[in-house]
Amino acid sequence: MVNTPPDVAADDHLRKQCRRIRGARPTAVNLAWAVDRMDAAVQPVKATAERIAIARQEATAIEKEEIDNCRRIGENGLPLIAEISRRNSGRTVNILTHCNAGWLACVKHGTATAPIYAAHDSGLEVHVWVDETRPLNQGARLTAWELGRHGVPHTVIVDNTGGHLMQHGLVDIVIVGTDRTTFTGDVANKIGTYLKALAAKDNGVPFYVALPSSTFDWTLRDGVREIPIENRNPDEIRTVQGWDNHAPRTVLVPPADSPVANYAFDVTPARLVTGFITERGICGASEKQVRKLFPEKA
Amino acid sequence: MVNTPPDVAADDHLRKQCRRIRGARPTAVNLAWAVDRMDAAVQPVKATAERIAIARQEATAIEKEEIDNCRRIGENGLPLIAEISRRNSGRTVNILTHCNAGWLACVKHGTATAPIYAAHDSGLEVHVWVDETRPLNQGARLTAWELGRHGVPHTVIVDNTGGHLMQHGLVDIVIVGTDRTTFTGDVANKIGTYLKALAAKDNGVPFYVALPSSTFDWTLRDGVREIPIENRNPDEIRTVQGWDNHAPRTVLVPPADSPVANYAFDVTPARLVTGFITERGICGASEKQVRKLFPEKA
Repeated sequence: MVNTPPDVAADDHLRKQCRRIRGARPTAVNLAWAVDRMDAAVQPVKATAERIAIARQEATAIEKEEIDNCRRIGENGLPLIAEISRRNSGRTVNILTHCNAGWLACVKHGTATAPIYAAHDSGLEVHVWVDETRPLNQGARLTAWELGRHGVPHTVIVDNTGGHLMQHGLVDIVIVGTDRTTFTGDVANKIGTYLKALAAKDNGVPFYVALPSSTFDWTLRDGVREIPIENRNPDEIRTVQGWDNHAPRTVLVPPADSPVANYAFDVTPARLVTGFITERGICGASEKQVRKLFPEKA
Repeated sequence: MVNTPPDVAADDHLRKQCRRIRGARPTAVNLAWAVDRMDAAVQPVKATAERIAIARQEATAIEKEEIDNCRRIGENGLPLIAEISRRNSGRTVNILTHCNAGWLACVKHGTATAPIYAAHDSGLEVHVWVDETRPLNQGARLTAWELGRHGVPHTVIVDNTGGHLMQHGLVDIVIVGTDRTTFTGDVANKIGTYLKALAAKDNGVPFYVALPSSTFDWTLRDGVREIPIENRNPDEIRTVQGWDNHAPRTVLVPPADSPVANYAFDVTPARLVTGFITERGICGASEKQVRKLFPEKA
């Protein structure tokens, strides 16, 4: 067994670390969900070596389940893309996504990307509009890279662009991930998701959210009012990280004395969401339909 | 008089240069409007020295008129902000703007900024949410700088943020500029404006567009379908210009082999626009109301 200082698995230390990790991401729920599950798994045993062994076993089980969930999200979302392709007589299906809900963020397959990879791998012609996703540019830096490595045709755009594309029929479907979704259908996701959902609604473009059931919050009813929105370091906006002659470099953009606010997420109300793609299947964004797919939570 | 090569004011040269300058900005109309006006002014005379003198005179007249127009836009927009302040019992009025429609872009006072400067100068408490405005960051680099120099309280945000702010009552009014507005009320402006207009509508926030009458297009009826949208260099998105140790520097953000599309403007349909702030006064975003304010165009 690992050579560990004796107190790493002690109750006090565990309680403190669980609280610290749970508190690290106020908006997202998967981290807290996983911490609670790990905590529950190790509580029944007290010996350090046994706790470590059980923790590893539980973590591996979570990883396997999440990979399986992402695979099923891909299988369940694939027919949505196939149906658009069929209606378009096989013409390329244009999908817009925001931020990174790929395998870099969500283990293998990813969540929002899972139906895209499934469609591409099954031979359907797909093309992805990748929102660069300011301020941290997860779209430009992660999603574009992932899609490129997988050979999925894609185009990077600034976050301002989606509405214009939808007005001109250049987006067939929006698929995004989520950091927390209420059982009533409100979706917290990377800041700017709400704006894309408004544009999708205004232009009759289907707006889907892909998520494993661990991302549902079964306690909050009003996502817009009740989900806490993480306020992050203003320097994430002030400065941009990129490459200069193959070396990483950071540049300052606004005047150094201009105040900056960095709200990291927003909440898209259920009324703007066409449906959820989960490991169990697809359902509408309403308490009734969500509970029907997850009857054990009713 | 200036020592000029003899053919600068020749008909051929002028025709070619007018065409070149007119074609430089396919979406905006003010440049073409000014070129036509200059062309009309110099046509009646043929001698080089006289043409140059008349050109200078006409350019100075345009400048003076535009400054006067911007000042009147400020005077006409001020009551909108004063009324919100009054309703809020003097609490700070939060104004959101997108891109730069300040004096750096639009001579003195600017257009969208004119009512803001007028309100601030008259002693009203105002605070401006400044969209950074990707890809060229005119908000973060120009508007924030302008407002800061004038002492107007402001906060830079990423373009994704406006919807969240409006959901939470943190925006009292949106004021933007425009590159071309149809007489039917459709507004072409920097890409992303449409998304903010959707969010304003969804949250009952008034959405105003400030413009001198030279920005109206009296020929097109359907702005969304008919206004050409400039497609600019993808490198504007791929790379970000900023400061590194007080030296200007450019960094690359997405993978070098990922395709990028750079649509520079979008069109906000009239139904999302509360009104226009012009040098003549305020009017609603409809053909009827626009023509009422500009009867000579009817």
